[in-house]
Amino acid sequence: MSNDTLQVRRIGIDTYHENVAYLNRECGLYRAEGFQALSKIEICANGSRVLAVLNVVDDAAIVQPGELGLSEQAFAQLNVAEGSLVTVNHAEPPSSMDAVRRKINGERLDQNDFNDITNDIVESRYSKMEMAAFLVATGQNNLDRDELLFLTRAMLKSGESMNWHESLVADKHCIGGIPGNRTSMLVVPIVAAHGMLIPKTSSRAITSPAGTADTMEILAEVNLTPDQLHQIVRDLRGCLAWGGTAKLAPVDDMLISVERPLGIDSQGQMVASILSKKLAAGSTHLLIDIPVGPTAKVRQMRQALALRKLFEFVGDHLNIHLEVMITDGRQPIGRGIGPVLEARDVMQVLQNDPDAPADLRQKSLQLAGRIIEFDPDVRGGQGYAIARDILESGRACVKMNDIIQAQGSKPIDLHPGHLCQEIIAPYDGLVTHIDNFQMAKIARLAGAPMMKKAGVDLVKKLGNPVKKGDLLYRIYAEFPADFKFAQDLAAQNNGYTIGDDEQLIKPLIAF
Amino acid sequence: MSNDTLQVRRIGIDTYHENVAYLNRECGLYRAEGFQALSKIEICANGSRVLAVLNVVDDAAIVQPGELGLSEQAFAQLNVAEGSLVTVNHAEPPSSMDAVRRKINGERLDQNDFNDITNDIVESRYSKMEMAAFLVATGQNNLDRDELLFLTRAMLKSGESMNWHESLVADKHCIGGIPGNRTSMLVVPIVAAHGMLIPKTSSRAITSPAGTADTMEILAEVNLTPDQLHQIVRDLRGCLAWGGTAKLAPVDDMLISVERPLGIDSQGQMVASILSKKLAAGSTHLLIDIPVGPTAKVRQMRQALALRKLFEFVGDHLNIHLEVMITDGRQPIGRGIGPVLEARDVMQVLQNDPDAPADLRQKSLQLAGRIIEFDPDVRGGQGYAIARDILESGRACVKMNDIIQAQGSKPIDLHPGHLCQEIIAPYDGLVTHIDNFQMAKIARLAGAPMMKKAGVDLVKKLGNPVKKGDLLYRIYAEFPADFKFAQDLAAQNNGYTIGDDEQLIKPLIAF
Repeated sequence: MSNDTLQVRRIGIDTYHENVAYLNRECGLYRAEGFQALSKIEICANGSRVLAVLNVVDDAAIVQPGELGLSEQAFAQLNVAEGSLVTVNHAEPPSSMDAVRRKINGERLDQNDFNDITNDIVESRYSKMEMAAFLVATGQNNLDRDELLFLTRAMLKSGESMNWHESLVADKHCIGGIPGNRTSMLVVPIVAAHGMLIPKTSSRAITSPAGTADTMEILAEVNLTPDQLHQIVRDLRGCLAWGGTAKLAPVDDMLISVERPLGIDSQGQMVASILSKKLAAGSTHLLIDIPVGPTAKVRQMRQALALRKLFEFVGDHLNIHLEVMITDGRQPIGRGIGPVLEARDVMQVLQNDPDAPADLRQKSLQLAGRIIEFDPDVRGGQGYAIARDILESGRACVKMNDIIQAQGSKPIDLHPGHLCQEIIAPYDGLVTHIDNFQMAKIARLAGAPMMKKAGVDLVKKLGNPVKKGDLLYRIYAEFPADFKFAQDLAAQNNGYTIGDDEQLIKPLIAF
Repeated sequence: MSNDTLQVRRIGIDTYHENVAYLNRECGLYRAEGFQALSKIEICANGSRVLAVLNVVDDAAIVQPGELGLSEQAFAQLNVAEGSLVTVNHAEPPSSMDAVRRKINGERLDQNDFNDITNDIVESRYSKMEMAAFLVATGQNNLDRDELLFLTRAMLKSGESMNWHESLVADKHCIGGIPGNRTSMLVVPIVAAHGMLIPKTSSRAITSPAGTADTMEILAEVNLTPDQLHQIVRDLRGCLAWGGTAKLAPVDDMLISVERPLGIDSQGQMVASILSKKLAAGSTHLLIDIPVGPTAKVRQMRQALALRKLFEFVGDHLNIHLEVMITDGRQPIGRGIGPVLEARDVMQVLQNDPDAPADLRQKSLQLAGRIIEFDPDVRGGQGYAIARDILESGRACVKMNDIIQAQGSKPIDLHPGHLCQEIIAPYDGLVTHIDNFQMAKIARLAGAPMMKKAGVDLVKKLGNPVKKGDLLYRIYAEFPADFKFAQDLAAQNNGYTIGDDEQLIKPLIAF
């Protein structure tokens, strides 16, 4: 074998979104090229090319001199047989990092810069570090609205797009931050029952205790092929699928995999992320839900208005009909927080159960009503009544069951985890404040969303009077370790404030 | 074995500055805890604790269920025997990331914030992504000068400090960017021969074709223990060692390991990096060299002045006597670029060889003169003459030989690589411009600094008249692949501009 080629060996190590290559320290190539551990290399075989981070191996049982080991992901991406010959070179840093450095230096980027950056990210030319640099450099107020439009367009172009061949394709999206806010699972069956096309694809939870995909998964398969998705939408006018399989705006998912561990979240990136995904999914009409409250993502009315205008600016330039609803984000919506508990709430509303959480029902009807008014045949102001009629008549429930059957129903078990802790009121008063972040954190520590039956079940909501010793909420868990973490956190701060009428937080908006 | 403990296994994989742990996918713990590949875990054993990034393994030959594999670095850090029992938990994100997020949001940080951040970085609580976020958030103009002072102080406190128990400990530092600029190897023997204490520790090349440590290594050992270093400095008043073994401002090295691949380089971080290292090394008097020129790091005089004031502000608050010299950075200094070629230039100057590069000699004498004037017994304006006398009398050369012997001399071979390409003038004229970046890049591609004998050897400098076909410079390499890369780059752009008298770039400063 020449000094320049190595034999590929598949290494049974899962390195998630990051390609890793393994080279024996005694390998001639390693010494000749002056490779360093953690440097980025380019591997070529037979027309195929992948980039990977290098790890240096001292154990010939893992990889021998003359071999190049590849982690599962890198091996799959390179897509050649084990033992194939490959060549290895230093990877050039991505050329679009020049634009990122210009942005760090305070310059304004143009459409071409954003196109180059998203192309390099999609082609795995960016390391996690480089993506973090891009995210921070374009975070917060560092993008003006034209740059935001350029970024959205570039993210949209980075992947595939769907075309439903209809003039009205409806969608809704909440910017997040409110636990239990599972309105999509009510809006979709109502709107689809009205006959409008609403092919909803959702994400799994990123930092929250449950996403729509996690919750829908309690009832039905959400991992659909593009063909299945299209068939179901053609038949039923709506679906509730996981969006991860479609290659829509893939840059968004790659950036989120860095945003999540960093815990950074900028308004500009949120607008670009949401709109690029929705446009790629073929939406023509979009309703955005912006909850406002002291522990919501948006805390002040003026911030909500600024964000609304950003959405409108980018939406108008990208030719999507976009409306924004600013909603009450003072507390969690519904009772359950966590996949199983939220699925239970949704089914109660659909079944017109008198015990169904009224706030979840009410908000979902308002959102569905606004979407129904996208229909040119609906008279302005009539959407809410139509939505309520669809829900109360049981047509929404029938539609939901049809969707569940079509996606593939699951044996339904809506019982929460077997470990349960009750959190009680320490004295008499009124619930004046419920902290969305704290409730979400307790539910996450209890195991949600990974542990489907874990979470928090709220008994008292804002404004409810309580006596000392009354039950405020329950924590559910499946594993003792999770249970203890959640109990400990609730013991430090249970998220509820008990006070008097004066102290009750008022909504920032009139509904 | 309980479900909670795992047996440690050492995995022969070198993951450089990043700890990696390997867990079998079939391991009960993996499934119970919902760990994900690339998530950060905390490993505890017997009072010892390390953080690592998780890789999931499907091959029991690498790691079995019930075992926890650790990369070389993580295994060394945990410091327990193979087979020891460890417990594993999710690592909490570092709490100081809150401060980083506040900085991203445009807030001003205080001394405590910077202390918390540097502590978390030193304790390996930051991932590379998190360090990148910190670097970008505090990059460019995002730190005011008080914050810069806080950061410098925090970096200084993050490690150990040296104390030489003398009232005058001299040092010099160049901000970099000028190839061939090996003045330290002349300044140290001159200043030490004058009797001043100058315990110089240097870095290896980061993005340049040679650092002082790489070049000194051609002549002598540079990897000294703290005891050796102190002994040599006590005996000879000076040394030229690699600074990497001392634990001075370790945060600086960790941040540099992220800055380098990102190619970001902010003035604020440079000031904090240089001053924290110099203060930790026990310097009391410091001369900073800021080269200015169209292809230097600092391109405009006003930038050089702003940078000088930043150095002075932080230096004064941290109680170091600091002077700044703004120097001519229009072209490389000396002839050689690359460790062996630069060592040859230095030895020619020390030996008063009539062929020695005049610019390297002149600049080194100016710097040494300024440092000698730190001596209260030297009359203002006499430093240069003293330095020149020390050099011309041969006392500097004797001192250098003493230092080489004390550090451990090496068999000296100052011949460049055996592969040689001559670059010639395409037409008659004058050398009007030499691009520092391009010359450094050609030398790096030729193999420097890893390949000691590789690099570039300049024959013509700015203002020299040339005839068509005259030799401009030579490229030297040791390996054909490197040689070809460097040749290809020089064929695209050889870094030299030939023009007329009018076009010759003038120095931005009078010297």
